[in-house]
Amino acid sequence: MRQAHPMFATVGIMGVGLIGGSLGLTIQAHGLATRVLGSGRSVESLKTAQELGLIDEIVSEEELATRADLIIVCVPVAQSLALFSKIAKHLQPHALVIDVGSTKLDVIASAKQAFGEKVGQMIACHPIAGGAQHGPRAAKEDLFDKKQLIICPILENASKDISKIEQFWQLLGAHVFKMPALMHDHLFAAVSHLPHLLSYAMMLQIAQSPDADKKFVHAGAGFRDFTRIAGSSPEMWTDIAVANQVAILAELDGFLKIIEQMKHALKTKDTEKLQRMFQLASQSRNNWQVESTLTSPIHE
Amino acid sequence: MRQAHPMFATVGIMGVGLIGGSLGLTIQAHGLATRVLGSGRSVESLKTAQELGLIDEIVSEEELATRADLIIVCVPVAQSLALFSKIAKHLQPHALVIDVGSTKLDVIASAKQAFGEKVGQMIACHPIAGGAQHGPRAAKEDLFDKKQLIICPILENASKDISKIEQFWQLLGAHVFKMPALMHDHLFAAVSHLPHLLSYAMMLQIAQSPDADKKFVHAGAGFRDFTRIAGSSPEMWTDIAVANQVAILAELDGFLKIIEQMKHALKTKDTEKLQRMFQLASQSRNNWQVESTLTSPIHE
Repeated sequence: MRQAHPMFATVGIMGVGLIGGSLGLTIQAHGLATRVLGSGRSVESLKTAQELGLIDEIVSEEELATRADLIIVCVPVAQSLALFSKIAKHLQPHALVIDVGSTKLDVIASAKQAFGEKVGQMIACHPIAGGAQHGPRAAKEDLFDKKQLIICPILENASKDISKIEQFWQLLGAHVFKMPALMHDHLFAAVSHLPHLLSYAMMLQIAQSPDADKKFVHAGAGFRDFTRIAGSSPEMWTDIAVANQVAILAELDGFLKIIEQMKHALKTKDTEKLQRMFQLASQSRNNWQVESTLTSPIHE
Repeated sequence: MRQAHPMFATVGIMGVGLIGGSLGLTIQAHGLATRVLGSGRSVESLKTAQELGLIDEIVSEEELATRADLIIVCVPVAQSLALFSKIAKHLQPHALVIDVGSTKLDVIASAKQAFGEKVGQMIACHPIAGGAQHGPRAAKEDLFDKKQLIICPILENASKDISKIEQFWQLLGAHVFKMPALMHDHLFAAVSHLPHLLSYAMMLQIAQSPDADKKFVHAGAGFRDFTRIAGSSPEMWTDIAVANQVAILAELDGFLKIIEQMKHALKTKDTEKLQRMFQLASQSRNNWQVESTLTSPIHE
């Protein structure tokens, strides 16, 4: 639905990959901005984004920061500090900055360091949306529709600004949740970051084996689904892993304890124990599936 | 396509769950048998299977073994020995027995023990097909269509019998591969059995945590796919794990070595090493996807 009055005169998108490009597309489709600026590392991506109509104009990062009423930072989380530092002094006093990173404590720490007393203008966001495809050509207008969007407010944020950003994401179709950054990073270490690491490791285990070719021929639908997330961007996930190192290592240790129990049960052929473990796991999985169809907005 | 002359006068299906039920349905749809008998542990499943037309007649295991020209054993692999022992003395001399178990060395060992000098009548099979749903109501006519089917011949099998079974599965739409049971169990430990164990363990790790409810609310599409196989039958997978214990433990140890490397890189924030590992994994995954669309028959 197009808005009669755009929420923001000028939106600036820094990084026009899948997320940034989809934001440009969706913001324009919904009439949430009069003009959409784009900046980024890759001139090719920017040109593609402009050709596809995801952004109106290609500008430098400084110019974007000077002109935009809403700045959306869509770069790998490890680049946040450098980018925030570059734009800090150019921000208009009324401008808001949001990000889309998969980790929040580190992005907020970078924001505090770079923006100083202006840090209240930055509102940390995480859309639970993505896809195997990268780059502006993968942009989709419905990428955020019915997906979760987490806002991690900090004390310095004005509540009217948080409300405005909440409304912005809702207009893009997202279901907005608010939680502290510490809780966000803990939850996503468990349900997203660790599974990514395990999926990468499983893929490596096969790829590095002498009969990898044979194995890939016979891998089936279960393997395909289990390793789908191993196709994700190595750069982005290296950043996420390092940014959320503490929480991920804690989850990994918990996981390895369960694996040790399972391994012991298997070694001793303790079928009762094995079946009890598998039973609890499959019950949880099947209950979750049912509930998710009913209540959770993020499962396609 | 219905066959003008049925391949077998009477087919007997032992265990009418998803696989057994689908076989009954597909065999009748293709006209591969004049009559389909069913036996099993659960009277309720058998009645359902008969009502749904998956089988023509419910009989005892002994009667099934006496009457069937082709006996298809569709029970959890741990029950193979008991079932083979029960039917061994009732087999007609020309009858063939096939199974559909996910492990082959153990099933063949059970067959040798139970059938003795008749073991040549048993041909070990493994259809790479299944689904999250269990029981006869989940039966599908296209379950084997374009899916892989592995035959693990033994020296005692007559080559004309192997050819007949190969043709049987091909008529159901499957792509037939032949390999030694040892290789089968090694390959599937890597691409199927270990991923199932890891997926169960991941699910347990979340389910047993104090904030499991919160985690399940925020788990997304990546988690959904990664844990899909954790919804599989605990009984069946306990059997498979124990039956293929040696190969699975070897794969698990290899996997844990990779996890240790990854954990060390993460602890020391060795981003170069982490990114190299993720890169290799994601390249393999993305290359596999491409190839699988082109050549591999089993990916839906």
